[in-house]
Formats: sequence, C-alpha cells, structure tokens
Amino acid sequence: MKIIIDAMGSDKGPDELIRGAISARDAFSLQLILVGDEAVIQESIRKQGLSDKDTEICHAPDVISMEDAPMSIRERPDSSMRTCFRLLKEGAGDAFVGAGNTGAMHVGSTLYLRRIKGVRRSALAALLPGTKPVLLIDSGANIQVTEEFLLQFALMGSCYMKKIHSIDSPRVGLLNNGAEDHKGTPLYVNAHRLLTTLPGIQFIGNVEGKDIPYNVCDVLVCDGFTGNVALKTLEGTAGFVMRQVKAAIGASFSSNLGGLLMKKQLYALRKRFDASEYGGAPFLGIAHPVIKAHGSSDANAFFHAVRQAVSYVKTDIVGDIEQAIAAAEDDLARAAEMAKEAGKADRG
Amino acid sequence: MKIIIDAMGSDKGPDELIRGAISARDAFSLQLILVGDEAVIQESIRKQGLSDKDTEICHAPDVISMEDAPMSIRERPDSSMRTCFRLLKEGAGDAFVGAGNTGAMHVGSTLYLRRIKGVRRSALAALLPGTKPVLLIDSGANIQVTEEFLLQFALMGSCYMKKIHSIDSPRVGLLNNGAEDHKGTPLYVNAHRLLTTLPGIQFIGNVEGKDIPYNVCDVLVCDGFTGNVALKTLEGTAGFVMRQVKAAIGASFSSNLGGLLMKKQLYALRKRFDASEYGGAPFLGIAHPVIKAHGSSDANAFFHAVRQAVSYVKTDIVGDIEQAIAAAEDDLARAAEMAKEAGKADRG
Repeated sequence: MKIIIDAMGSDKGPDELIRGAISARDAFSLQLILVGDEAVIQESIRKQGLSDKDTEICHAPDVISMEDAPMSIRERPDSSMRTCFRLLKEGAGDAFVGAGNTGAMHVGSTLYLRRIKGVRRSALAALLPGTKPVLLIDSGANIQVTEEFLLQFALMGSCYMKKIHSIDSPRVGLLNNGAEDHKGTPLYVNAHRLLTTLPGIQFIGNVEGKDIPYNVCDVLVCDGFTGNVALKTLEGTAGFVMRQVKAAIGASFSSNLGGLLMKKQLYALRKRFDASEYGGAPFLGIAHPVIKAHGSSDANAFFHAVRQAVSYVKTDIVGDIEQAIAAAEDDLARAAEMAKEAGKADRG
Repeated sequence: MKIIIDAMGSDKGPDELIRGAISARDAFSLQLILVGDEAVIQESIRKQGLSDKDTEICHAPDVISMEDAPMSIRERPDSSMRTCFRLLKEGAGDAFVGAGNTGAMHVGSTLYLRRIKGVRRSALAALLPGTKPVLLIDSGANIQVTEEFLLQFALMGSCYMKKIHSIDSPRVGLLNNGAEDHKGTPLYVNAHRLLTTLPGIQFIGNVEGKDIPYNVCDVLVCDGFTGNVALKTLEGTAGFVMRQVKAAIGASFSSNLGGLLMKKQLYALRKRFDASEYGGAPFLGIAHPVIKAHGSSDANAFFHAVRQAVSYVKTDIVGDIEQAIAAAEDDLARAAEMAKEAGKADRG
C-alpha cells in the first residue's frame, strides 16, 4: 500500500510529519510519497537520521498556509496539497494524509477527486474521546448545511463506524440545544423528523453537549460550524482540566512509588483525551481516502493519522456509502425539497 | 431587598431551591416571596427545620415543567413561573430567580416584562469557568439571531462585565470555527466586520472553542444554539475528566496526609468547574432582574443564583445598557438592514 503525504503546511513544520509518516511506514510495511520542497524533505530525513527506504519524494515548491483562503488551492498548482490530490487522482498512491489547511483540503477533495455517487457534500468526521469514541460528523468542513446534507452525514457516519469500528448498528444522535424533539433551529427540527424514518440508520434523537463524553451515541450529526465549536471546546476543556489537575497535585507526589503510579494513571488519562491519539479525520463522501490530521500534529499524531488511512484503504467504505445513499433515495429527495422551500424563509 | 423565588419546576424539586433561597436570605438580609404550591412549600420549610422569617408564600397551584413548550406560559396564568413575572411587574419584589424551563422564562420575560429601550432580544448570559470567568452571551435563549442581535449581545455583555465584575474595558470575542476574520457563516462574517467598528466595546476578533478556558476574552458572543452546545460541552467535558481523574487516582491516597491534601486541592478544582458555583444566568436586556438558575440546581447553586440577583439589583445595569444601545444606534441600524437583505438569501 502506498500513502501520499503532504509534508508541508502543518503548524509544527515538516520534521514531525516526516518522522510520524516514516514510523507508520515501518510499522505497517507501507510505501510513501512525501510531497513538498525536495531539499527540505531530504534534509529533514538526513538530520533526523531516518531511513529513506520505500520512500519517494515528489517535489512541490509551493505551500498553502493555514491563513490562506480555502479556494486559493485553485490558483496554487505547484502547492504540496494540490500535488497530493493530483497524485491520488492519477492512482500514484492509495490514500492522501495531510495536516494542512482544512478548508483547502475540503475544497480540493471536492474539486480534484470524485465524490461517491449520490453524495452531495463530503464531511469531516473526527473521533471524539470519552468512555468510547464518538464520530462527530461534520467536524468543520461544511459551515452551512441543509436537511439533506445532515441525513447524508448520518448515513456516511454509520457506514464508517460499522466498517472501521465494527459496530453492528451504530446509534446516531443529532447534536442539539436540548433533548426534546422540538429543539433547535427549523433546520434541526426538520432534520430530526426526517432522521426518525431514514432507512439504514438507528436514530436515537437529539444529544446535548453535556452527554458527548458518555457515549450515548456512536455517530453525532451536526453542521460543520457547530461541530467545530463542540470539537474544539471539548479538546480545550479536557486539556485545561488535565493541566489544572497536574498543577493541583504538583510535584510532591513524584518522589515515591505511589506518586509514580498515580502519574502513570494520569498520563494514560491524558493520552485518552489527546487528539493526537485519535489520528486524523477522514473526508467522508469522497471516493478516495483523504485523511486530515490535526494542524498541530506531532510525529505520534501523524503516525495515527497514517494508521487510519491504512484501515480506510483496506475496507470498502466507498461501496457501503454508495449503497446506503441509494437505499435512502426517496427520503433524501424529500429532504432536498424541504431545504429548497425553507431556503427562502429562514436563516439560523 | 425582596427576591421573588419560583420554588417549583426544577429538576431536583422544591426542597433544594427553598433551602438555598433561605440561606441567601439569611446571608444577605433579604426578604423572600416563595411562589408555588403553598402546602408543598410550607411542608418543605417545616421538614427541613428552616425559619420562615421575612418570607411570604404566594400560592400558585400550576407548574410549568421542563418538557413544556416555551409558549405554553401564555396559557398557564396560575403557574408559579407566570405568577413570579406578575409579582415582579407589579413591584412586589426587586428580582425574580427561578430554575425552571429556560425557554418559558425567556418567553415570559419578553411577554410580561418590559425590555430595555432599544433592545431587540433579551439574551441568557452564563459565566463559563476557566482561568477567569467568561460571559457567554447568548447561552441558549435565541436559537436564531441576526447581526443586529449579536451586536446588542456584545454591548449588553460588556455593560454586565463592567458593572458586576469590575472590568474597565471588557474584551469581546466572537465564538467562531476559526480565528481568521473570514471564518464562519455569512451571518458571522458580517457580525465580525460590524463588531470591529462598534462603539463602546473592545472587540478582539474570533475566538475558537479551544481557547474558552484560557480567558482570551471577557465576553463571548454567539447565537443561542451554538452557545448552548458550547456551554454544555464544556460542562460535560470538565465533569467527565474530573470523574476520570478521581477514578484514576483512586482510594489508595485517601489514607495518608499527602492524600488528604491532594483530595482537598482536587475538590477546589472541581468546585471551580462546578456550574453551581457560578450561580445563575441573567436575561440581559430585560428592564427587571430575572436570573435563571441551572435546572439541576442544588441548594448551593441556588444560593449563588440569589446572590447574583442581589448584585444585579444593586447596580444600574439597565441604565448602562440603555445608554450603550443608544450610543450605537447608527451601527445597529446598519446591522438591521443587513439582516433584512440577507434574510432572503441564506440560512445557517
């Protein structure tokens, strides 16, 4: 299996990504194409003392930064990200993993790769930590959505959790500002009603933010604006509390055996809430595996993102999604009609 | 000072509310009107061994539950909540504190009390825990908003943090899915642009969920849907992590002095993240003090909500808000125009 890596454009620079990708290569017997400035990549491999076996370098001199507008990828043919899309489309590799600008990766995957038949929008699907992982879809790709998009997110997320996390009948929740059926914007009220009869999913109703860590559902559906706020609030709060705990219990316990044991347990807990352990988020709905790693990925986080790409390639999620969308055709058409009518009247 | 208390309609029943209100009465030399089923209130006071000095009971046989639709308050003249609004309007007391149905309290405060001159919508303003408290406005009252509402939330929140938390020039952030100026729905992009020139506030730009605990701003503006999701995600995550920490460090440390010390520090930390310590959330924009306590308030939480009502009554926030809205008249009119035009085209 050959994985295409955008070595540029992350917050922490290419060294971490390259080290993470190369450990994944060695762990899973992969081949790699590292895309970016050739001299920078070669120097990074050399100075970190890494081996370049089974690794090609594809030179791309330009880098799309985090501050660039998503659509700028159209005018940046020589950027590392755009080159990754080209290589994936040409079949030079099996999956693309990158830690760059999310918006540009979303636009690029839509413009330069095929969407799965019937899929209206691809969505970013991130795993949230908690008693068990919950797939949040959309985590930030589609800032504005329609009822139809939300229904498709529910279908795609269910396919993913079935295949990759071996959950027979994933429970789907709708992220909302209250548990009652009538809660939310008109868009969410409509989506709730449509989800209750959507074939192929197990809809459990509205889910509030406070319940996210308690695994009340396996797939959590929402628009990308709300999803992004929820994801980052959860990550920020967990990190903040863990840091406070560390400060509160302080150094006094590190010197004896009990202290060391406790430190070990707290470390395990911190790892559980560490976004990097969850790897990347796939753009579900695209006919090729495109995995978005966290912008601030270190080598470990990027290793897990590549690991996730490997699982994705091995399963036929694309076929599953196509089937699920086709089976729900009538319901999706009804949702699309609703969105068209409502589009004239309300904004949320 | 006389505080009107809705003794009914909370998740934990009247005993906790009544005990909390009576401790606040004794701590701050207040008079109380306890509103609800007279027999239930009398029995609660008796069986908890509380004193009924400076405390009237106003009988209201009906209770609006958490499941009732917000508008149902219109058909429930004998409900405790509706009675509280009537008493406040008639001047029988100085403030109303309740832990019941948020939507009904929002509708009721708008229907039965006067809004401050120029205010378009009242908003629920909750304090979020972190290195220092941040006022989240709107925390869940207005599920759909316009640019004009968001600008008014920024003005009202600034007045509140100035007066109640003695911050000279509160920093205002806009909750968004990224830090860059162009982030968010069209509504948020417009609001961002308008906030940069709004007189009377110090706008610092977009704020991401991950930054909420780190006090990057004093007032955090958003629509009530997103705000409610962020608030509950933060509360849920902090509670979950603290519970995991407790389980991870276990009982092994409770038996020695070091263990007790650490337990004390962790308890202090848990208190800091406990919603109940932050008291209630005022409906800003209403000409009378209406404080919403958490639905699951215990006596301690309700005590703090009443304490907050006392601070509110003592200051002239109503006058401050009226002035701030008047001073920003032109900017608000421009925002209102924008909302009217955009209303035809987009939905979020």
